[in-house]
Amino acid sequence: MMPGGVYVLRMGHRAGRDKRVTTHVALASMALGASGVILSGDEDPGLMESVTKARDRWAPGFLLEYSKGWREPVERAREAGLAIVHLTMYGVELEFLLEGLRALARSRGLLVLVGAGKVPREVYSAADLNVAVTHLPHSEVAALAVLLHELLGFRGQRGSPGPVLPQLRGKLALPRGARPPVPGSPGSSS
Amino acid sequence: MMPGGVYVLRMGHRAGRDKRVTTHVALASMALGASGVILSGDEDPGLMESVTKARDRWAPGFLLEYSKGWREPVERAREAGLAIVHLTMYGVELEFLLEGLRALARSRGLLVLVGAGKVPREVYSAADLNVAVTHLPHSEVAALAVLLHELLGFRGQRGSPGPVLPQLRGKLALPRGARPPVPGSPGSSS
Repeated sequence: MMPGGVYVLRMGHRAGRDKRVTTHVALASMALGASGVILSGDEDPGLMESVTKARDRWAPGFLLEYSKGWREPVERAREAGLAIVHLTMYGVELEFLLEGLRALARSRGLLVLVGAGKVPREVYSAADLNVAVTHLPHSEVAALAVLLHELLGFRGQRGSPGPVLPQLRGKLALPRGARPPVPGSPGSSS
Repeated sequence: MMPGGVYVLRMGHRAGRDKRVTTHVALASMALGASGVILSGDEDPGLMESVTKARDRWAPGFLLEYSKGWREPVERAREAGLAIVHLTMYGVELEFLLEGLRALARSRGLLVLVGAGKVPREVYSAADLNVAVTHLPHSEVAALAVLLHELLGFRGQRGSPGPVLPQLRGKLALPRGARPPVPGSPGSSS
């Protein structure tokens, strides 16, 4: 983990139950411009393989790691100078912390913790900031998406249109070699 | 569906495979301020029951419906004057449509379509607008969260802190009767 990056730590992954939601956490982090994801909890080689495949194709610089426990990556992030942010409905509203979080992300970098099942009470104290995206229980994927989008914006997003022309209506496949760049994507001139 | 609201249509729900992700779609829509969710695909009484319970508790006015197919709710929305927006990586970037979408949401209302498995080609033509939150395949929950947040903002969010005091650090349960209102939540004076 490098200063100035925004990383995501998925805590307490359960290999059977959480496979799809954890995949959403990892792929959304990648698409919305995070610098990497650390998965903790059950080891899940199938999940790591599919996310690694996506990483190699779309975001080669994206960090992807597994750590059995959540404490070790939190310690490493702290040593690297990153601030620890825990997304929880029991935290303080994102709206009121936004400017500070943006400044922290730029100057130090962030490690954003999202839980799978019930989060150990210790996490609430280990975090520098407990941050809420609403006080309702809804979806760690949705909460993370709102946070990453507020921090990194449209400019931070990854990906260019593949074999399909972005269209308001209909779906039009393009022949190979005729794939236009999208403004803001790597390799475009704008 | 009423003009001026933002509704979500979850298409193609598969009762076994999609239970958790569809639950995230519904609860995130509720928390982030949508006016309602229509579930289509497999009938899933357990899912409807748990989301209905959340609705009754936190968002009594939130519309919750089931429709076997996706065409019927799309037709109804169209008759009510709503614009049909389909979230897909093959659409046009949200960034470029944002002002128009906000104006459409206010003046006419929107029905936002999100798929579960592969979306029938017909959906791409049935929608007024195909909108992309990045061109990578990631998570319909994340894409929907970004769209709803851009349309409805922090002011549209639902929910007030329950039995826990929002805290930057630690987790502190409150006694009953000592639950402070949060700015912007119903019942607060600010």
